[in-house]
Amino acid sequence: MKALLLIAHGSNRQESNQEIQVLAEKLAVASCGFDLVQCAFLELTQPSIPSALEDLVRHGADDITAIPYFLAAGRHVVTDIPEQLNGFMETHKDITIRQTAYIGQANGIVDMLLDLLASGVEVSS
Amino acid sequence: MKALLLIAHGSNRQESNQEIQVLAEKLAVASCGFDLVQCAFLELTQPSIPSALEDLVRHGADDITAIPYFLAAGRHVVTDIPEQLNGFMETHKDITIRQTAYIGQANGIVDMLLDLLASGVEVSS
Repeated sequence: MKALLLIAHGSNRQESNQEIQVLAEKLAVASCGFDLVQCAFLELTQPSIPSALEDLVRHGADDITAIPYFLAAGRHVVTDIPEQLNGFMETHKDITIRQTAYIGQANGIVDMLLDLLASGVEVSS
Repeated sequence: MKALLLIAHGSNRQESNQEIQVLAEKLAVASCGFDLVQCAFLELTQPSIPSALEDLVRHGADDITAIPYFLAAGRHVVTDIPEQLNGFMETHKDITIRQTAYIGQANGIVDMLLDLLASGVEVSS
């Protein structure tokens, strides 16, 4: 069973974490080829990456795609997330986890910024 | 003179910070209605937000649009960045700074994630 794990940084601000939950729900609605969609947080809030992975496996996932919801390849993307994913795979030999590109690598980031500037939307929280 | 300030978190990993520099250069090439485009970092690297703002003002900017390159409205977007922008304006009464929406608020984030998943791009650093 295929699952998608959306991995965000996590915040002390619960409204921020809820944005990620809502985004994961939107991805689930879009279905996008996955049977299960879940989010996880690297720091500051729950579910942690191992906890979310355990949850997915408990629901039958054995082929997990992890997408880092990060804008640049800092330590979190390059070291912390791979370490946690690899650590989980070491103790769950029958589970495959692949880490995709982070969102900052997506085509269209420049156009998205230009659209945002053109829309003149003020910050909301 | 109108200027755009792209504000990112900043990393201990210089390759990560260079991604932001490259993105600011792409925005400058796209011109997008600004005479000057600069990036700044909240933490861990330079230029800081006040330092980048000083630089823009020294080059003639008096109308600055600050766009937070952040995915969710955590403490950085809601508190830290506004505090620094307001602090600068208090000591530079002739300068206008507006903070726009952060990139996580942009329309099209879900589609961008779906495209990223469809492309199957593996993480690079």
